[in-house]
Amino acid sequence: MSRLVMKFGGTSVADLERIRKVAALVAAEARAGRQVAVVVSAMAGKTNELVAWTDGAGAADPTLNMSDKSDDEYDAVVASGEQVTAGLLAMTLRNMGFAARSWMGWQVPIITDDAHGRARIEEIPAAGFGETLDGGEIAVVAGFQGVTRSGRLSTLGRGGSDTTAVALAAAIGAARCDIYTDVDGVYTTDPRIEAKARRLARISYEEMLEMASLGARVLHTRSVEMAMAHGVLVRVLSSFIEPGGAEGGEGTIVCDEEDIVEKRIVSGVAFSRDEAKISLFGLPDHPGVSSEIFGRLADANVNVDMIVQSHARHEGAANMEFTVGKRDSARAVEIVRAAQGAIGFDDVAVNEDVAKVSVIGVGMRSHAGVAKTMFGALASKGVNIQVISTSEIKISVLIDAAYTELAVRALHAAYGLDQV
Amino acid sequence: MSRLVMKFGGTSVADLERIRKVAALVAAEARAGRQVAVVVSAMAGKTNELVAWTDGAGAADPTLNMSDKSDDEYDAVVASGEQVTAGLLAMTLRNMGFAARSWMGWQVPIITDDAHGRARIEEIPAAGFGETLDGGEIAVVAGFQGVTRSGRLSTLGRGGSDTTAVALAAAIGAARCDIYTDVDGVYTTDPRIEAKARRLARISYEEMLEMASLGARVLHTRSVEMAMAHGVLVRVLSSFIEPGGAEGGEGTIVCDEEDIVEKRIVSGVAFSRDEAKISLFGLPDHPGVSSEIFGRLADANVNVDMIVQSHARHEGAANMEFTVGKRDSARAVEIVRAAQGAIGFDDVAVNEDVAKVSVIGVGMRSHAGVAKTMFGALASKGVNIQVISTSEIKISVLIDAAYTELAVRALHAAYGLDQV
Repeated sequence: MSRLVMKFGGTSVADLERIRKVAALVAAEARAGRQVAVVVSAMAGKTNELVAWTDGAGAADPTLNMSDKSDDEYDAVVASGEQVTAGLLAMTLRNMGFAARSWMGWQVPIITDDAHGRARIEEIPAAGFGETLDGGEIAVVAGFQGVTRSGRLSTLGRGGSDTTAVALAAAIGAARCDIYTDVDGVYTTDPRIEAKARRLARISYEEMLEMASLGARVLHTRSVEMAMAHGVLVRVLSSFIEPGGAEGGEGTIVCDEEDIVEKRIVSGVAFSRDEAKISLFGLPDHPGVSSEIFGRLADANVNVDMIVQSHARHEGAANMEFTVGKRDSARAVEIVRAAQGAIGFDDVAVNEDVAKVSVIGVGMRSHAGVAKTMFGALASKGVNIQVISTSEIKISVLIDAAYTELAVRALHAAYGLDQV
Repeated sequence: MSRLVMKFGGTSVADLERIRKVAALVAAEARAGRQVAVVVSAMAGKTNELVAWTDGAGAADPTLNMSDKSDDEYDAVVASGEQVTAGLLAMTLRNMGFAARSWMGWQVPIITDDAHGRARIEEIPAAGFGETLDGGEIAVVAGFQGVTRSGRLSTLGRGGSDTTAVALAAAIGAARCDIYTDVDGVYTTDPRIEAKARRLARISYEEMLEMASLGARVLHTRSVEMAMAHGVLVRVLSSFIEPGGAEGGEGTIVCDEEDIVEKRIVSGVAFSRDEAKISLFGLPDHPGVSSEIFGRLADANVNVDMIVQSHARHEGAANMEFTVGKRDSARAVEIVRAAQGAIGFDDVAVNEDVAKVSVIGVGMRSHAGVAKTMFGALASKGVNIQVISTSEIKISVLIDAAYTELAVRALHAAYGLDQV
């Protein structure tokens, strides 16, 4: 009998009415003869409430990032949200006549490392868990949480329920992991910006990973990495459908590149307004400057994304531009300013009014001209490119935020993504 | 080094400000050189919110009592409330510079039976837990919850955090178990009714047990039973004091009768308006009738408290009166009516307008005249007694609810409880 993992996020279980709708979707799969494990998030808003309490109780320094102030007690508090949803859904399924029970992370068990607040799953020895599935019981698993080897509660960080679902699917050998969300699949771009955006029937792990990293909020990066590593077939689909409505290959399948018949050069256009650009002027043009700057930022856990260096007008000096997450920008500037003497530069400026727009596609590997098409399309609309960064399967540009929608639509059209 | 258990209820941890005050009280004990284990309830209102959700998700029959519809999933949902408080208090203590950590019921572990929703603690193998106390770490324990031998979450029922505290005190050999509550001790009667009520410095387990059963809401009955069984010294005191203010024997100590120097005949006057009186008229006066009636009620989990049987005016027939909890009265009448043919009686009536007033004191065992004083005091105020029940250390009377305050004050004065 085939096993299926279904995952429902916070908006899908926001209240009892929504939980009953989730139960109906689960019931349809169980009635179709599948062994079902359901992974649930906390009810929408609950995690934020819990985090706010920990801020009040624990934040010695409220300017710290969440991951910096997260600890074992933060995890004990925040993990309670998923516990509630798991119990409520198990109850609801029982009242519909199904055998069902809730599983906390420590009960499965989902064993993680000790990195509280952003723990990584190390092992899911789910033998006993699998037996209950074989026995016909629906398993309702609290997502986002695990247990360390020393028996403390841990959480996987935001979006961690996706990771729970994929890891569990790998552990129990599920035929597929269905991620129910508030959209009905992965689109060529955000349909709120480009009405002609189309849902992709299939997308490769690599592309999905870039999409997730580059601003598409459908799946959590780590869950895609894990699906890719274990070859878990993931389907993204809407939880706002009626039971049975998802049959017949609806949603978007995330799978191996080889399993995609219809090849495209570019699969999607992603964008993010979460970045800030920091510019350093008049840097000494000698080796070691970059490592000095980025070493200090790395020590402070500031992630740097795009970097470009250029020669300044006067000889022997350079300018440097790089991007960091908006929430880190003030701290990054502070760190750089504090090191002004050691590094030696004239001035620093920060620009939060930028957006990163990216085109993604595995077809780039074998096709020339993708960059040319991109730059041409942007130039024809008068969009100025500030920074460029590339990988094997994506090209990203940093532009003035005011041009975001214009750029997204121009690129969507330029690669023919709006054509059925 | 002496060990101390401190327990704080829902109103004492209702918000972050209150949790900080609790932390200050805990800190004072730790600074005084004690090994401290703190037991906390859910933040006030949270358990009700969780129970309401389970009602919506799980109550196939909303007319069922809480204990009847409680199950493993109910427990999984409801136990989350204490988890949150434990984590928040541990965080707060750490920020004050103390070593502290939270302990869920399954981590201690507090092992219970499988009676979900009203589980009984079977064992607390707290060896590892005790080691952390020895190591100077403050333990913050989620009250009310435990874990079954099959690894499911369980809860102990309302008031269960008191039981957690006392059981834990017994398990770790604590010198005392301090129950912090919203009153500053056990009073001779409810001060809201009799302003002359005095706080008792000491009260015996037996008396406290009767007080708890008879309407005084200071301590949960089961926690007193457990304290008595294990000889745990319990102190009841107010959480609305400043740190250090509770030193010097404040509050009320609950202890062995032998440890009370100043003997009293009557220690307190309790009352309850939670009862309803059910009257059966024209019962056949032959053996087996009582067992027929009370057997059916017991099968339906209806607790019967006071019972009195009297002969009716016509020969061969009897009347019977008994009391049940108000919430059970409609159901009790239904059960009795359904059996009218089998039992044989003329009529049934229910009166919810009654109150039970009780005087309690271990001194009754050796002193005659306690009942005489009681009935005389009530008669002198024109209070009519409907039903009487007694035990070795208490006398209870059922009266018209309108006379409750009058009766309480009269009895309080008659036994000299208002005299310092």
